[in-house]
Amino acid sequence: MSSKTNPARGMRDFLPADVRKRNYVISIIKEVYESYGFEPLETPAVENLETLMGKYGEEGNQLIFRILKRGEKLDLEKAQTQNDLADLALRYDLTVPLARVVANNKNELPKFFKRYQIQPVWRADRPARGRFREFFQCDVDAIGSTSMAVEGELISAVSMILKRLGFDDFVIRLNHRKVLADILDTAGVPSELHSEALVAIDKLDKIGTEGVASELSGRGISESSAKMLLEIFDQTQKIIGEGKDINRTIVSNLINIVSNEVLTEIGQILRFADGSPIQLDPSLARGLSYYTGAIIEVNVPDLLGSLAGGGRYDGLIGMFGKEQIPACGVSLGLERILVVMDERGMFPPEIAESTPADVMVTVWSEETIAESLKLANELRQSSLRVTVYPEADKFGKQMKYADTIRVPYVCVLGESEIAEGKVTIKNMKSGEQRTVERGEAAARLA
Amino acid sequence: MSSKTNPARGMRDFLPADVRKRNYVISIIKEVYESYGFEPLETPAVENLETLMGKYGEEGNQLIFRILKRGEKLDLEKAQTQNDLADLALRYDLTVPLARVVANNKNELPKFFKRYQIQPVWRADRPARGRFREFFQCDVDAIGSTSMAVEGELISAVSMILKRLGFDDFVIRLNHRKVLADILDTAGVPSELHSEALVAIDKLDKIGTEGVASELSGRGISESSAKMLLEIFDQTQKIIGEGKDINRTIVSNLINIVSNEVLTEIGQILRFADGSPIQLDPSLARGLSYYTGAIIEVNVPDLLGSLAGGGRYDGLIGMFGKEQIPACGVSLGLERILVVMDERGMFPPEIAESTPADVMVTVWSEETIAESLKLANELRQSSLRVTVYPEADKFGKQMKYADTIRVPYVCVLGESEIAEGKVTIKNMKSGEQRTVERGEAAARLA
Repeated sequence: MSSKTNPARGMRDFLPADVRKRNYVISIIKEVYESYGFEPLETPAVENLETLMGKYGEEGNQLIFRILKRGEKLDLEKAQTQNDLADLALRYDLTVPLARVVANNKNELPKFFKRYQIQPVWRADRPARGRFREFFQCDVDAIGSTSMAVEGELISAVSMILKRLGFDDFVIRLNHRKVLADILDTAGVPSELHSEALVAIDKLDKIGTEGVASELSGRGISESSAKMLLEIFDQTQKIIGEGKDINRTIVSNLINIVSNEVLTEIGQILRFADGSPIQLDPSLARGLSYYTGAIIEVNVPDLLGSLAGGGRYDGLIGMFGKEQIPACGVSLGLERILVVMDERGMFPPEIAESTPADVMVTVWSEETIAESLKLANELRQSSLRVTVYPEADKFGKQMKYADTIRVPYVCVLGESEIAEGKVTIKNMKSGEQRTVERGEAAARLA
Repeated sequence: MSSKTNPARGMRDFLPADVRKRNYVISIIKEVYESYGFEPLETPAVENLETLMGKYGEEGNQLIFRILKRGEKLDLEKAQTQNDLADLALRYDLTVPLARVVANNKNELPKFFKRYQIQPVWRADRPARGRFREFFQCDVDAIGSTSMAVEGELISAVSMILKRLGFDDFVIRLNHRKVLADILDTAGVPSELHSEALVAIDKLDKIGTEGVASELSGRGISESSAKMLLEIFDQTQKIIGEGKDINRTIVSNLINIVSNEVLTEIGQILRFADGSPIQLDPSLARGLSYYTGAIIEVNVPDLLGSLAGGGRYDGLIGMFGKEQIPACGVSLGLERILVVMDERGMFPPEIAESTPADVMVTVWSEETIAESLKLANELRQSSLRVTVYPEADKFGKQMKYADTIRVPYVCVLGESEIAEGKVTIKNMKSGEQRTVERGEAAARLA
């Protein structure tokens, strides 16, 4: 039976308690993003397949869910490859749709467009602990400026969100694609192999130095270059481990490798995002191929993988429009945040222990249902959330149901109460009960 | 260029002003549903194809978006039909997923489960004015009771939502599948043709009496039965046109056709949903095949089609689990509501004229960006929504941008202001400006 009623593989149903937790986190994310002047945007779940192709690299392409053509467009006999069968695809991230929207609405949007977007994306990944095929991204992006004030504000907003949610031990790792390029040049990796090298370096956290060394060699990078690269990263990891004046020390170590211009940008970001716990990490690579400048990732000690990630992508919008428009953004992973908050018990009591209603109204008999519904409507006028037991039933059963749904109060509306214009209010925690005038019930409950 | 940057056919991007309107309507729907004790549920956009097949009738099946199998599962050579190519599908409505979830979580859910769900659904329909391939349904359902108190509360909640949104001319048309069955029996339509007849009758609003007559004949219903049927409906339409004591007159006209039990149920619904503008309409059919009892549709004069629709479906959950569990629900169409509200100008000014921020902070020079960002953070502590001009630029350009995004106030932070610990606040509407102590700026603005 369960295979018939389970959600599809890697997908999840969210029962009310889950939805409340999700909505709590989303509401704080929205509030902070809006306090920074970011505006909401929503795009369709379904995009033209060609919009997504070639934006996420080879591995990404494999993970795109494709939608079967319909009607006459679907010609099974002529179809040679899966691209003959599919014309649409499910949204894979929120950045590519944003780039498309910006190119499509250039004249309607302000020249600096600051938007946030909180929507699900889908990836045909192998499901694993904390990895789902449908998950929410909470993106914030600023379009139209090359100023590092953008990076500063994005980092500051993300820090504010995590602080508001109660995180006090997160680290924002910062790097720059040009730092990586300069390090790769220094190590003698030819520029046509840079993106191959980045894919390998991106796995440093997961597969360690030796793993990356062998992956670098597999991707055609010479042993001596790989060795030099990993030595540079090793050195900065040691500095990070020492923990004092880290950023300054790392920058001074990079002076002979990285151009002044890039170091200036990094210095600006550190200053503009003052108060955020930023740690320079020259080995941070990020998987996506569209980044061109600063890149960040947000980590906490008890989670493998990151709570958020992002960076500057000055070339992506130009892939859709005639014009190159600079852009930078960060994406918070809702599910990652929820996992850590759940494990640490970080939800406030009104969320963790919320109930479907403040009051339940009982029903005395078939004939008095209308009266119970009416009382419920009276109570709702005082902003109470009121549920009514839906049918005539034994009193004990009604109270047991009230217990199950954990309502704090029950309004008993029996024959005598109706006759006398009264209501008996029962406090479900203390067991106390008290009969009051019907007109006063709402005030008593509130 | 535009074909490359447009959303997919029948899908839409929602720019900030659209999202704000959508969120306003959704927030009222949520608030009212929660005041009735309904709890939030969310299900994945993607369902197993077999979950959806056979639930929506033949026409429905054609409109399901199917997702291509992946990897080795996709065998192009062996594939005979499109069902060999697809294993997943996009959610088509919110009722079938609810039935699946209830069957799957029987032991975790209370015996009366009242849930609301506001999520998009997808149908491969031909796009037309007001008809999209991705649209939001706002569903509310009560599971576990056969009492008409359920129908009464659902109708009452939907009425409350429409009133809160400002609608004062909607009509809730009410019918019962058993009324239709009894009318069809009376007209001599054999029971195996009932569902065929319902498909035709459902089009009465769109194609009129003659259209339905010819469709009935095309679906194998005899001319005499069709004539009798349409006469009964014609008669009730005349009563509805007369407009006094309609429901009573219609019921008395049905006494010889419809069973007492069903008329009693209708009477109960009218009583339990007291205060809602209900109008009995024996010709109301509803397209979906899973309804078993009361059915409703909500209309306004200036919209062809309905704002909401729903009914009782006591057999659907049993298609997923071992147990038959009664259920009833109503679905509000977000897009339909928005279309009418837009045309009538029903949005409150704070939504219709909302801006991305309350204040914009200017930037004097490259060197003072950090100071502007700092001022913005100070102002945010007083719950102001603050945006910062992201780069050093001519003052005129900064003011022009402030105009474009329609912020009501600008904080000018020039060289002299920084030196003196002051801020100049400009009211963008009146043009007035005033220099104040920096520490007082937030209070002045709030």
